[in-house]
Amino acid sequence: MKLATLKTGARDGELVVVSRDLSRAVPVPRIAPTLQAALDDWEALAPRLQRVYADLNAGQAQDAFALDQSKLHSPLPRAYQWADGSAYLNHVQLVRRARGAEMPESFWTDPLMYQGGSDSFLAPHDPIEAASEDWGIDFEGEIAVITDDVPMGTTPEQAAGHIRLLMLVNDVSLRGLIPGELAKGFGFFQAKPASSFSPVAVTPDELGDAWQGGRVHLPLTVLLNGEKIGEPQAGPDMIFNFPQLIAHVTRTRHAAAGTIVGSGTVSNPGADGGPGKPVSEGGVGYSCLAEVRMVEQIVHGEIRTPFLRFGDRVRMEMFDAHGQSIFGAIDQQVVRYEGPR
Amino acid sequence: MKLATLKTGARDGELVVVSRDLSRAVPVPRIAPTLQAALDDWEALAPRLQRVYADLNAGQAQDAFALDQSKLHSPLPRAYQWADGSAYLNHVQLVRRARGAEMPESFWTDPLMYQGGSDSFLAPHDPIEAASEDWGIDFEGEIAVITDDVPMGTTPEQAAGHIRLLMLVNDVSLRGLIPGELAKGFGFFQAKPASSFSPVAVTPDELGDAWQGGRVHLPLTVLLNGEKIGEPQAGPDMIFNFPQLIAHVTRTRHAAAGTIVGSGTVSNPGADGGPGKPVSEGGVGYSCLAEVRMVEQIVHGEIRTPFLRFGDRVRMEMFDAHGQSIFGAIDQQVVRYEGPR
Repeated sequence: MKLATLKTGARDGELVVVSRDLSRAVPVPRIAPTLQAALDDWEALAPRLQRVYADLNAGQAQDAFALDQSKLHSPLPRAYQWADGSAYLNHVQLVRRARGAEMPESFWTDPLMYQGGSDSFLAPHDPIEAASEDWGIDFEGEIAVITDDVPMGTTPEQAAGHIRLLMLVNDVSLRGLIPGELAKGFGFFQAKPASSFSPVAVTPDELGDAWQGGRVHLPLTVLLNGEKIGEPQAGPDMIFNFPQLIAHVTRTRHAAAGTIVGSGTVSNPGADGGPGKPVSEGGVGYSCLAEVRMVEQIVHGEIRTPFLRFGDRVRMEMFDAHGQSIFGAIDQQVVRYEGPR
Repeated sequence: MKLATLKTGARDGELVVVSRDLSRAVPVPRIAPTLQAALDDWEALAPRLQRVYADLNAGQAQDAFALDQSKLHSPLPRAYQWADGSAYLNHVQLVRRARGAEMPESFWTDPLMYQGGSDSFLAPHDPIEAASEDWGIDFEGEIAVITDDVPMGTTPEQAAGHIRLLMLVNDVSLRGLIPGELAKGFGFFQAKPASSFSPVAVTPDELGDAWQGGRVHLPLTVLLNGEKIGEPQAGPDMIFNFPQLIAHVTRTRHAAAGTIVGSGTVSNPGADGGPGKPVSEGGVGYSCLAEVRMVEQIVHGEIRTPFLRFGDRVRMEMFDAHGQSIFGAIDQQVVRYEGPR
């Protein structure tokens, strides 16, 4: 099943069921007005949404309309929890290697995770507003899951059954602010402004065989100004799978329905275990500019690629084996923020 | 105006207006079903809630009932953002002094803040569940504000007008997990389980002269197992006021209505600038056990007070000059968590 949120005047938009090929959608006000409402009562409502989905795919849904992805908000325009892991340790190792720091051994057994702001996500085609290019504006391509209620002390085995939906994420990061902020010791705050999510959230069964072992075994396609800079595989190098990340979230507390858990930046090492090659050299490339720059630093001894500039455009999408876009596209332009209106 | 949320079967409970003396309450379903709904449309709804409040205080509200604080949830049972500052630098200095670390100079000009989990707060009289006493269970007495929509780039001067409500907080902390978690570099996650808030949230005007300079100039009373261990002044030593903390939140992003911003642990230095004295020695005492222990370490060379044990009870309350409880009481017992049901 595929779900999305139509932008309306309301803060939470309006829930729509989307056809498998993303061509059509249908509102479901009699089942659930918003995605959060559906997640709050998923056991009861999901089967009813599923029937609408079947009708829609069969061309038999009343009130269906042609879907325009630019009219969609993030599936949850605001959420109660956004917990972002960093499960592709190649990304973590690269960041550290570039600055000459070792990665602690414990990182292989204890997931890195930060609590993200979740009060106002960007819509997937909304601009990324920033007051200054000096902030070092970057994107991070990730996968995320949405859970139902997950009790404290849930094991990874139990956590698997709590995954209700999957999405793509652009975890916007301000690289220029990260070192100073992390040095304070309390983690990210200003360095992680609003994230955006793919237009469409899908149930795990939509991924077919690509959903295995709590991971998505498909490449994530990332374009910068129309040029492919990354197509990393989301499956093999995700050291902690989603059930393990959810278990990390709930070690000391319950997690409520609508909790979003992120994978961290999708990242593959090179065939020799070293840094992966750029797309231009036949590699799978990268899903963030920080990695592009770190690899340049390592390979060429100098950074050649700047962070995002006003006017730059980032696009992220994931395709199935038949070339069908699964989640729709995140497609955002960086713009200068002129200050409070 | 005083507002609270009645526990119901629903996740967000039901908004009630509470009388100034906390004795009576009245539901307002025709104005706003929940506190979040009121915050989402505050400009339009607050004047209507204010009229109910005036009627209630005059003994003229229909459907009013005797208020039982144990029936209340946290004012926002779940929220879209919980951003907790650490504005009482005496607390920060003490923590660091106990482990022989200096506090960076920049901490006097750049607020410390972490992104907290906000998906499921504890009710003010709910137990604090923990699987192990070895986690080093502690409380932290704080003040918090709730804002309306605050745009990116808001100045402290502008931020003052975005403060809609105030509450008390018990920011439950697992001291045993903090060093390991902060060493990973991404801030708190498992070390900060669900917080609880006072039963009642109040508009700033309810504080009268005690609300000055963006701070609450009243003592916070903290009891441990019925014994007063702290009555620190919340006003004078709050280095960053709430408007400054809100400006910190919104430096790189917008904050949506219902954002909760915390003060950090209320803490006063001693008269000589050193660690403050315990209540038993005529001092104002402490609003967390970490400080009790750190002062013991500094003064006596050894820690004498354990962290919370199963069965311990923590109570936090703030009284006005006439001895009237302003926010009602947070009153929680620590209990052993037996695992997912």
